[in-house]
Amino acid sequence: MPQEVWKTAITKIEPNKVAVRGYPIDQLMGRISFGEMVYLILKGELPTAQIGKLMDAILVSSVDHGATPPSALAARTVASGGAPLTTAIAGGIMTINQYHGGAIEGCMRVLNELVAYKNEKGLDALTAAREKMVEFRTKKIRVPGYGHRVHTDDPRTRRLFALTEETGVAGEYIEMAGALGQAMAESLGRELPMNVDGGIAAVLCELGFAPELGNGFFAISRTVGLTAQVYEEKTRERPMRRIDPAAHEYDGPAERELSGRE
Amino acid sequence: MPQEVWKTAITKIEPNKVAVRGYPIDQLMGRISFGEMVYLILKGELPTAQIGKLMDAILVSSVDHGATPPSALAARTVASGGAPLTTAIAGGIMTINQYHGGAIEGCMRVLNELVAYKNEKGLDALTAAREKMVEFRTKKIRVPGYGHRVHTDDPRTRRLFALTEETGVAGEYIEMAGALGQAMAESLGRELPMNVDGGIAAVLCELGFAPELGNGFFAISRTVGLTAQVYEEKTRERPMRRIDPAAHEYDGPAERELSGRE
Amino acid sequence: MPQEVWKTAITKIEPNKVAVRGYPIDQLMGRISFGEMVYLILKGELPTAQIGKLMDAILVSSVDHGATPPSALAARTVASGGAPLTTAIAGGIMTINQYHGGAIEGCMRVLNELVAYKNEKGLDALTAAREKMVEFRTKKIRVPGYGHRVHTDDPRTRRLFALTEETGVAGEYIEMAGALGQAMAESLGRELPMNVDGGIAAVLCELGFAPELGNGFFAISRTVGLTAQVYEEKTRERPMRRIDPAAHEYDGPAERELSGRE
Amino acid sequence: MPQEVWKTAITKIEPNKVAVRGYPIDQLMGRISFGEMVYLILKGELPTAQIGKLMDAILVSSVDHGATPPSALAARTVASGGAPLTTAIAGGIMTINQYHGGAIEGCMRVLNELVAYKNEKGLDALTAAREKMVEFRTKKIRVPGYGHRVHTDDPRTRRLFALTEETGVAGEYIEMAGALGQAMAESLGRELPMNVDGGIAAVLCELGFAPELGNGFFAISRTVGLTAQVYEEKTRERPMRRIDPAAHEYDGPAERELSGRE
Repeated sequence: MPQEVWKTAITKIEPNKVAVRGYPIDQLMGRISFGEMVYLILKGELPTAQIGKLMDAILVSSVDHGATPPSALAARTVASGGAPLTTAIAGGIMTINQYHGGAIEGCMRVLNELVAYKNEKGLDALTAAREKMVEFRTKKIRVPGYGHRVHTDDPRTRRLFALTEETGVAGEYIEMAGALGQAMAESLGRELPMNVDGGIAAVLCELGFAPELGNGFFAISRTVGLTAQVYEEKTRERPMRRIDPAAHEYDGPAERELSGRE
Repeated sequence: MPQEVWKTAITKIEPNKVAVRGYPIDQLMGRISFGEMVYLILKGELPTAQIGKLMDAILVSSVDHGATPPSALAARTVASGGAPLTTAIAGGIMTINQYHGGAIEGCMRVLNELVAYKNEKGLDALTAAREKMVEFRTKKIRVPGYGHRVHTDDPRTRRLFALTEETGVAGEYIEMAGALGQAMAESLGRELPMNVDGGIAAVLCELGFAPELGNGFFAISRTVGLTAQVYEEKTRERPMRRIDPAAHEYDGPAERELSGRE
Repeated sequence: MPQEVWKTAITKIEPNKVAVRGYPIDQLMGRISFGEMVYLILKGELPTAQIGKLMDAILVSSVDHGATPPSALAARTVASGGAPLTTAIAGGIMTINQYHGGAIEGCMRVLNELVAYKNEKGLDALTAAREKMVEFRTKKIRVPGYGHRVHTDDPRTRRLFALTEETGVAGEYIEMAGALGQAMAESLGRELPMNVDGGIAAVLCELGFAPELGNGFFAISRTVGLTAQVYEEKTRERPMRRIDPAAHEYDGPAERELSGRE
Repeated sequence: MPQEVWKTAITKIEPNKVAVRGYPIDQLMGRISFGEMVYLILKGELPTAQIGKLMDAILVSSVDHGATPPSALAARTVASGGAPLTTAIAGGIMTINQYHGGAIEGCMRVLNELVAYKNEKGLDALTAAREKMVEFRTKKIRVPGYGHRVHTDDPRTRRLFALTEETGVAGEYIEMAGALGQAMAESLGRELPMNVDGGIAAVLCELGFAPELGNGFFAISRTVGLTAQVYEEKTRERPMRRIDPAAHEYDGPAERELSGRE
């Protein structure tokens, strides 16, 4: 049977040459940030410096959320049996799915649907959001990206939206995120602020990413925290322990201010 | 039985507050790059801007190496059976181990051993490297981080060392990496240039990271490329195909120059 | 916050006692086969000896299908990077999903749907199958469990159905599997024999298992073959090789007859 | 570059033929148990009926150990994020390593070492065990396979040894396991009974399996329990919950006797 030749548009490898999306990787090193590289490889083009900064902010925002999310617990548990670092990290990443991180993809789908509806019907954002909100409540659809089990006002979302304004990325998806929040508050009779997943979803919609990549962004970011969690488990704890997800304490550096950066 | 309270020094979570290594994450967003965040969470302190730039360069360098490394093939194969994006990424990450990416850790151990030997014996770097090289050959130990199956002169290593000089990070580990290369060439009778894993190893030694984290850096970087590989597999290929690791072609953007960046 | 007490009905552990679904495991050892144990733990009750024999046959049938299925290739690729045995086995198992092994679940859903339709409408099996086949073709739904990329007449399916007759398990799902095959042949104008996934699906429907467990049976069975594949990879091949899914040869024992067993 | 043709001795696939270790799989179905198949594929030959029965007993013994072992917790946690059944099972399997299940391999190595030492020195088992025990204590080596965090007299080990006697498999490794237990008791001043991992190790040594396969047997057996654990998690619990490893209760069938089997 003849060999099937399949195609890839990501990286070209030749002796003494590695080019990602056409750019020699050694030219990229030292000139773009890791966040800009994420944009380049997933989108196919380099971001503007402003959007690059936003990418770094998105990826910084989700790096870690302490020891209790399922991904951290799974990674630590795998490590506890004696698996190598990368196996344990993998155990954490596969935990990211519909219910853990999945709100990014879910919220992107909702925002895409609402903006399409708004434009198709020639409505303003708030009217479109209100009409769709009635539909969601009737169908008992829960909108992902709003509310949080710990945070009532997630500082990461607030900061992300501020950066989005600064960088001029804010457009009809960000607008719709706000309109949907208002429509939801009216419908539920209480505020349900957008969480960081929702904030990231809105920005990724503005940047034109496919919803299917939502969990990819989360996985890229969280791999960093999982590496730290697994390394801490391996260096601080005895193997084969029962990891209680509630009974732990933070004993790291006290809260401190970032200074000397822009 | 009383609950065991265990400790973590990575991230503190309180209502409306997320602080990584003491820094509120919303303060970090927009002010540090994703590479600087990797340094902060793994090392516990923020890097200088110069070292931060080097971190970004290290992480940019290993993002992807085409479709044929075991991690890319494993990730695509898992995706081909129908698994979700994050499961397939995890399949790729667990492929990173002693023989794939493992040269970073292996080379860090050798460089640590040689620098300790040099200092203990009061030798210069080249003499220490030559003495150890004799020992390695006698014990048939292969030194990781030198030579490559595709590249005879890896452009990524060259660029990394240039950046290391620029940023003033170069010290006795970088010096030893060169001395070891020379001792190896003398011993083998041919040049075996340092590969990118070796280059990263030398820089991570200068920055004081533990060798056990070597595969962690590689996993963090490669997760980006694996996300692109899996997404491409899912959007371009039919499910349940036999993935020939040789018969594929690059059909992405032609080679292009990076412009307008520093 | 008060501890949530959650429930499990699988295994009770007390000092010097391990009881699975109520049966002390030491009483089960030596008295039931591994296949009967699979039935007990998934179904909650012990099978009759006849059904137990059928369970063993199902699990024996899917143990391995050579080196080219995605699960075997993924497991070998993960092993090739240097991961431990169990990590590589896991890499294979996560490859089992909608397109690899998933036909069991898919076919169970179709058979459940058709038998329900038959009973609801008071039809005979063939009439129900013909009516549904028209619907499937209109909706362009491909029925899983029929046809195979290698086998035109899968000997495992033939044997499984013979055992099903022998053990008296054959009922309306097996009947419907045949009726659907006939309706499909009439509709397509060619025979598309039931494959082993379809055969297993029909038997599992007879035994009252939920379709959601389809991939579980396949995973349990295939873990055995994956262990052999990974062990062979680790003991026979050099690390970090490119595994060509086509260019391999069988060099094991020549074909031989089973003798001296019932 | 010419294609490398690699070899496999496990399964031969031809149109309408699947032969494992030379035996057509349809001939094996209904004639051998799932445990005998495990022996065949890992060892290359069919076991005697007696040894086959022992294989089933070994695999039955380790199927599940409740909800608290790391493998069960990791599998449930992965499932809790929303991953598919097989991904969650994989998450459990990769948790099996040096500290979880690893005692089988560890104990096999010790028993192999002691029997070799006994034979080389021409000693009886107890003398050899006593001499080695002195060495282990001096080197602070902990012997795996003895003692258990829950069971002081593991009923599974007791039953396994009884079956080993019955089937005539007991030889110098089983003898050594007993001798080592006695030497350990003398040295420590208290009984440390062999656990089920130790019992399995001794039997696998008698059957001539390589220690490297130890975790493979455990993975094959435990995949069954993990399938039940994940299915229970998915059908009984809400997603994204914090799984407390201590606060759970058994609510399955009350203890019952096995009857009507040999």
